Amino acid sequence: MSASQDLPKDYYDYPDWNVENAVPTMVPVEVIPPCDPTADDRLYHICISSISLMVMLILAVLARRMKLGDGQKGVPGLLSPVNFLDHTQHKGLAVAVFGVLFCKLFGLVLTPNPLPFTTDPGNKQNWMILSLFYYPVLYYPLLACGTLHNAVGYVLGSLLSWTHFGVLVWQKADCPKTPQIYKYYSLLSSLPQVCCLAFLSFQYPLLLFKGLKGTQKNTANEDLHSSYYRDYVKKILEKKNPSNASSSTEKPSLVERMTDAAKSYIYTPEEVFRFPLKLAISGVVSFIALYQMALVLVASVVPTLQAVRRGVNEDIAFLLAGFNVVLSEDKAEVVQIVIYYLWCVEVCYLSAMTLCCLVNLAMLMRSMVLHRSNLKGLYRGDIYNVYNCQRSIRPSRPALVCWMGFTSFQAAHICLGMLIQTMVFFLCLLIAVFLVIIPTFYGQNLMLFKVLINMWPFWMMLFLVVVVQHITTRFCFIKTSAGTPDLDNRGSLFLLTYLLFPVNVLVGVLLGAWRLVITALFNIVHLGRMDISLLNRNVEAFDPAYRCYAHYLKIEVSQTHPVMKAFCGLLLQNAGQDAAGQKARDAEEGIQLVNEEKHQPKVSRSKRARGHWLLLYTLVNNPSLVSSRKHFQCQSNDSFLNGTLNQATKDGSKKAGNKEGGTKETAKETQAAAN
Amino acid sequence: MSASQDLPKDYYDYPDWNVENAVPTMVPVEVIPPCDPTADDRLYHICISSISLMVMLILAVLARRMKLGDGQKGVPGLLSPVNFLDHTQHKGLAVAVFGVLFCKLFGLVLTPNPLPFTTDPGNKQNWMILSLFYYPVLYYPLLACGTLHNAVGYVLGSLLSWTHFGVLVWQKADCPKTPQIYKYYSLLSSLPQVCCLAFLSFQYPLLLFKGLKGTQKNTANEDLHSSYYRDYVKKILEKKNPSNASSSTEKPSLVERMTDAAKSYIYTPEEVFRFPLKLAISGVVSFIALYQMALVLVASVVPTLQAVRRGVNEDIAFLLAGFNVVLSEDKAEVVQIVIYYLWCVEVCYLSAMTLCCLVNLAMLMRSMVLHRSNLKGLYRGDIYNVYNCQRSIRPSRPALVCWMGFTSFQAAHICLGMLIQTMVFFLCLLIAVFLVIIPTFYGQNLMLFKVLINMWPFWMMLFLVVVVQHITTRFCFIKTSAGTPDLDNRGSLFLLTYLLFPVNVLVGVLLGAWRLVITALFNIVHLGRMDISLLNRNVEAFDPAYRCYAHYLKIEVSQTHPVMKAFCGLLLQNAGQDAAGQKARDAEEGIQLVNEEKHQPKVSRSKRARGHWLLLYTLVNNPSLVSSRKHFQCQSNDSFLNGTLNQATKDGSKKAGNKEGGTKETAKETQAAAN
Repeated sequence: MSASQDLPKDYYDYPDWNVENAVPTMVPVEVIPPCDPTADDRLYHICISSISLMVMLILAVLARRMKLGDGQKGVPGLLSPVNFLDHTQHKGLAVAVFGVLFCKLFGLVLTPNPLPFTTDPGNKQNWMILSLFYYPVLYYPLLACGTLHNAVGYVLGSLLSWTHFGVLVWQKADCPKTPQIYKYYSLLSSLPQVCCLAFLSFQYPLLLFKGLKGTQKNTANEDLHSSYYRDYVKKILEKKNPSNASSSTEKPSLVERMTDAAKSYIYTPEEVFRFPLKLAISGVVSFIALYQMALVLVASVVPTLQAVRRGVNEDIAFLLAGFNVVLSEDKAEVVQIVIYYLWCVEVCYLSAMTLCCLVNLAMLMRSMVLHRSNLKGLYRGDIYNVYNCQRSIRPSRPALVCWMGFTSFQAAHICLGMLIQTMVFFLCLLIAVFLVIIPTFYGQNLMLFKVLINMWPFWMMLFLVVVVQHITTRFCFIKTSAGTPDLDNRGSLFLLTYLLFPVNVLVGVLLGAWRLVITALFNIVHLGRMDISLLNRNVEAFDPAYRCYAHYLKIEVSQTHPVMKAFCGLLLQNAGQDAAGQKARDAEEGIQLVNEEKHQPKVSRSKRARGHWLLLYTLVNNPSLVSSRKHFQCQSNDSFLNGTLNQATKDGSKKAGNKEGGTKETAKETQAAAN
Repeated sequence: MSASQDLPKDYYDYPDWNVENAVPTMVPVEVIPPCDPTADDRLYHICISSISLMVMLILAVLARRMKLGDGQKGVPGLLSPVNFLDHTQHKGLAVAVFGVLFCKLFGLVLTPNPLPFTTDPGNKQNWMILSLFYYPVLYYPLLACGTLHNAVGYVLGSLLSWTHFGVLVWQKADCPKTPQIYKYYSLLSSLPQVCCLAFLSFQYPLLLFKGLKGTQKNTANEDLHSSYYRDYVKKILEKKNPSNASSSTEKPSLVERMTDAAKSYIYTPEEVFRFPLKLAISGVVSFIALYQMALVLVASVVPTLQAVRRGVNEDIAFLLAGFNVVLSEDKAEVVQIVIYYLWCVEVCYLSAMTLCCLVNLAMLMRSMVLHRSNLKGLYRGDIYNVYNCQRSIRPSRPALVCWMGFTSFQAAHICLGMLIQTMVFFLCLLIAVFLVIIPTFYGQNLMLFKVLINMWPFWMMLFLVVVVQHITTRFCFIKTSAGTPDLDNRGSLFLLTYLLFPVNVLVGVLLGAWRLVITALFNIVHLGRMDISLLNRNVEAFDPAYRCYAHYLKIEVSQTHPVMKAFCGLLLQNAGQDAAGQKARDAEEGIQLVNEEKHQPKVSRSKRARGHWLLLYTLVNNPSLVSSRKHFQCQSNDSFLNGTLNQATKDGSKKAGNKEGGTKETAKETQAAAN
């Protein structure tokens, strides 16, 4: 308050102020001229899109040559540079590109000129639709350059990301202020984009350096041969004799429970668990969404409020008198009061904003904890615990559509959630400040308190009745005999129940109001989270966001079960030892086994036994998997395993398939093995 | 609309109309003089309370004499006339008295004069608090008269209920119109009270008649000896070989599922299941609450709206012009339009009201279905299904407090829920009518449509993108091999996921809005129901209403398990055969066994065997009960059962205890047997 009261007097003196245009925003706002950066956006986009096209062509030629060469990758591989179903690949590139794309999208909605190729404002909508497809394509080469695991690709990627990064920084340095929303909005809004591009500019040279040093593994089935899955399985097998100290029968104390609840909101990385790529992207994009949304909410409201506050002068007294509001006889005092109230409004808004951001950050952390526990639960087969019903974990059409949209939906929910949270928190804070805090401090307008105080006998009665019920229950109606609590004095209990019926109805009204507040607040706070349903447990699938999340988990778990991937990796490792181009890897991994015949029609006895053993061990340690093997009950275990092994061998021997094909095959085996 | 347009012209011609008092409600309202009924309320209350006191005294004397006589009941029994934990007693009396009490309470809140003993309006609050305790006491004798199961009691009850009923009807016939809220409000509001009193006036003579004819069983342990519990157990035991046709593996079709869902909202009585008394009271009181709330909501708004509509004249055009709203150049047309709009508002309000009533009726029915399935589930031991976690079903302090208040809370929640539902439905209907329906019919003010139509390329794009995702998923990305769906064309899937990321964010915003609407609507519709939590399944106990319901169920189930009651009844029946005053019942039930010694120190071998067998049979058929026997694991089964039987025998032999004591003892056994 003191800050606003110390404002110099000349803030309120405007000669051209009259009642006619009595809108208190008539302040000489700092006029920011439209700024054209030296690096003209239109020219830049024409250049960069041509360069990107060139890069893609070079990469395609390179991919074709590499395919003819060692037969690992090809043009199709170039067309799907993100393997969303891979837990072990380096996630940085994909995450950064998605971050850039999301920042661009957020800018699109607010900019008057979505595509820089035109300045025609009439067709904004069509240009916008076009730009929704243009930008993913524009940033595509940034991803594709990393696909080939090749020095040329890394060099091109470095150059491209440097160009993007340099031009963006140049533009922002040229025009830090824009007339849009708030003078520095454009600058602040592009910060995450700058970060992501800086990360790319740093990452590509790093990859190039690693590639030149040869520490970068250059294999198609890198995913399956990664040690991650084996480590995961080891971890599971180690946990056979867990210390059951934590599951002691005594109930945890309130403090313990509260610490546990607080801990469940803090994400601590676990040794052997990696997030699926899609979840990692979702996390980062959600964080960017949080930042952007907070920026928009602050930038669009606070400067306006400040301008209004600066614009208040003595004429506001006339304006208020027109509405029969007389704050004070002295006009200068009226100005002071109005400025003070406006300052309070601003403080409320900023507090609501901050609260909203903190809440969403906590929710983001909690979501990550829950994602991890859900994924681990589903890997273990705890389907009932995660979904609260038995479901088949198989890909289906709606599941796949939900999987495709999950990252986007998550970001959109964060944005929408923040908007509504800010509004609600702002309203609540306003009510609290103007009906409770200011009246308490100044002893004025104590309407609420007066009403409450006038009703004190009523509140007293309700309180006493509740206390009487608790006390009589504690000392008269419950008796503990031989450790078992039981009812006592039933007659008096029934009598009291009957006599207090009318009062309890009034208590019930308060309880109902409390229920309303609690449920509304809970649902509003959790609006941005897709991993929990906002509905009752019996109908939770009707919550579209939760439904989408549940479907997403289905696909993720059915396709990337770590135990199954470890199993497939082991099978492929055995089967692949005889395939071409394996020596380098064998040497690398220190495996020196005698090469077997190329087109082995039948697996050896020891291998089959090993396969059996692995399957059985897995099933014994994950008994829940047994239940989902129903589909293959018609076949004998033996023939099934035989078939899988045969297939794996064939797959290994015809290694000429591209990466995608390989992933597909192994995923099929994962699926089959899970059955 | 035609109705309002046909209104005669003179509705709008008022000579004393001017812009100064341009509130369009200035209509000559029918003035209703305050009406003093012949049966003056004050006099009536003084008389009836004296009569009630007399009745109670007579009953007390009678109870004392009866206690000295056959030792069945006494004054303590008179002080707890409602046995809320009895499934089998005649529920009508208690339900009717609670209904009368609730109607009275509802009237109290709205009446300017809560207690008829004073006309001092200054201390309304204190009088109201007093009246909250006065009315339960006033109606108490209506319950107490039925407690003694005695002709004198029934006669007194008949007289008392006739008096109450007669005076109420007389008063309402004298003064059908009151100035309060709406002229017939008071009359309509007292209808449920009249019905309840009429029921009592009919029921007491009926009981007297039955008592004289001797068909009324006059035993203290009527509850335990009722055939209900034995029938319940028989029903359970019969169900050993259920036809598993319904649990076929094939999924039910959409139509079947919808029929099932609809059926789950229709309560059909089941042969061997009776509601606990408290639930029966809750149901009836909730229904009365629904009626009263609907009446208040209609009576307080619709007459005002109609008066406003009748009061509209040409000056409304000036008033609207003052706000820069010009509906038409012709003033008569403006009047027509305003009247039409007001008529629309009225229709919206009544529709919202009706919708709200229907929704709450459906919810009431659904609640009853759910109460029954929850109770049966808990009897079976399905604690996890009902509570979604393991809980001990034992009385505790909070549980008992919740149990005491359950009926009241339920009624309060219905009232609050209806208020909020009506407001929300009204708002939604207003928006629908004024932004969608009227614009569509008249082709005016098509703002919403214009916005939507201007954005058609955008909607088209979103629609197409969603359709494309579904179609490609269906035909390209999912392939079914050997009955197992699996992913196909992973590369294209990942590419499409990346490219559609920005568009999916926009789809996500729509999804989020839909989530908001769905969850808000669901929670508002279910606000009046305590039997489901409005929160997510992990935090559902934070919903105060659901928490209360869960606690209520605990007490109800722990105290009134039908199987245990049947078991105790059987034990008491054996043990009680040697007690005094049993011959009549023995003859009645056709049991003619040799009387055993009076103070038998030890039960016979066959009886003990029978007890064993019963316990084992129960446990075998309800294996879930075994888990809750932990508390008695330290004792051997044999000695425990022995103890229970001994206790039962002693209890039977010292039969001189009053009814309350008997119930208490048996309930303790129920508890013990459940362990």
